[in-house]
Amino acid sequence: MSDAVEWAVHCCTVLAVLPEDQALPAARLAEFHDVPPAYLAKSLQSMTAAGITESRSGPRGGYRLARPGAEVTLLEVVLAVDGEGTAFQCSEIRQRGPAAARDAIAYRRPCGIARAMWRAEDAWRAALAAITVGDLVTELLATVAPAQLLAGAEWIQSVEITRRTRT
Amino acid sequence: MSDAVEWAVHCCTVLAVLPEDQALPAARLAEFHDVPPAYLAKSLQSMTAAGITESRSGPRGGYRLARPGAEVTLLEVVLAVDGEGTAFQCSEIRQRGPAAARDAIAYRRPCGIARAMWRAEDAWRAALAAITVGDLVTELLATVAPAQLLAGAEWIQSVEITRRTRT
Repeated sequence: MSDAVEWAVHCCTVLAVLPEDQALPAARLAEFHDVPPAYLAKSLQSMTAAGITESRSGPRGGYRLARPGAEVTLLEVVLAVDGEGTAFQCSEIRQRGPAAARDAIAYRRPCGIARAMWRAEDAWRAALAAITVGDLVTELLATVAPAQLLAGAEWIQSVEITRRTRT
Repeated sequence: MSDAVEWAVHCCTVLAVLPEDQALPAARLAEFHDVPPAYLAKSLQSMTAAGITESRSGPRGGYRLARPGAEVTLLEVVLAVDGEGTAFQCSEIRQRGPAAARDAIAYRRPCGIARAMWRAEDAWRAALAAITVGDLVTELLATVAPAQLLAGAEWIQSVEITRRTRT
């Protein structure tokens, strides 16, 4: 799994607590998390394409969640950023070697090994689908030290004040 | 997940049906699956280190399962070949940026995002732990065409006959 997933989920939790009329540009989200802006921008674009975030243009533009955090699952974020593909890739090695069948009909049904691996991935997906960005925010608010929550809120506010002053 | 996992699981199903006194060298297992011998040998060594396979020396030596297939879980094979590490790597980005705490005690508890991701991986591991190589063999025997099973059995027998003739 790519680092980008970690960054994207963290971004979603920040976007979930933004004031109603505020948006955060990719560069500010990168600054808040101290991660490479270009790489983060790519993930934000992927999440926008997946309908998780939305992008507003203009001097006070930037990213917001496209839906309430309680309606965005962790699975959606992971798939948007890392792709829909399965971790296990069946390369059909059963069709190779001295015992392989010449008739393709013998391989109509997916290989039992691939099916077992994919069933396990289904369990992983189901667990990720059961958690929302809203759940993560609730947990973070309950576990992060008050001083950090305050520092985060002040930083979000400072970004907005700077932008309002400029516009 | 690496290709090596697919190859290793397929090898385990072949080793699980070997006659009692037979072993297969890495080169023959590679030939049976038409995969790169050196890369497969590395996985077989990892599985031996993990107590899944065992290696016998001598002219009729090679690999066997170290335990009955019913006692080897798919999870053991995956972890032996691909490593014990989690797919999600927490890089602690919460400790970076303008809202980070200076006091390390604020980060004593793992990040809620990492915990959510790891809970999902626990579900994946539990699903893989519930399937054994024996289960896979049972399913393969029930679904693979008889002609393929025969071709596989004949190939295993031919390897043994060739080796007995030489010794």
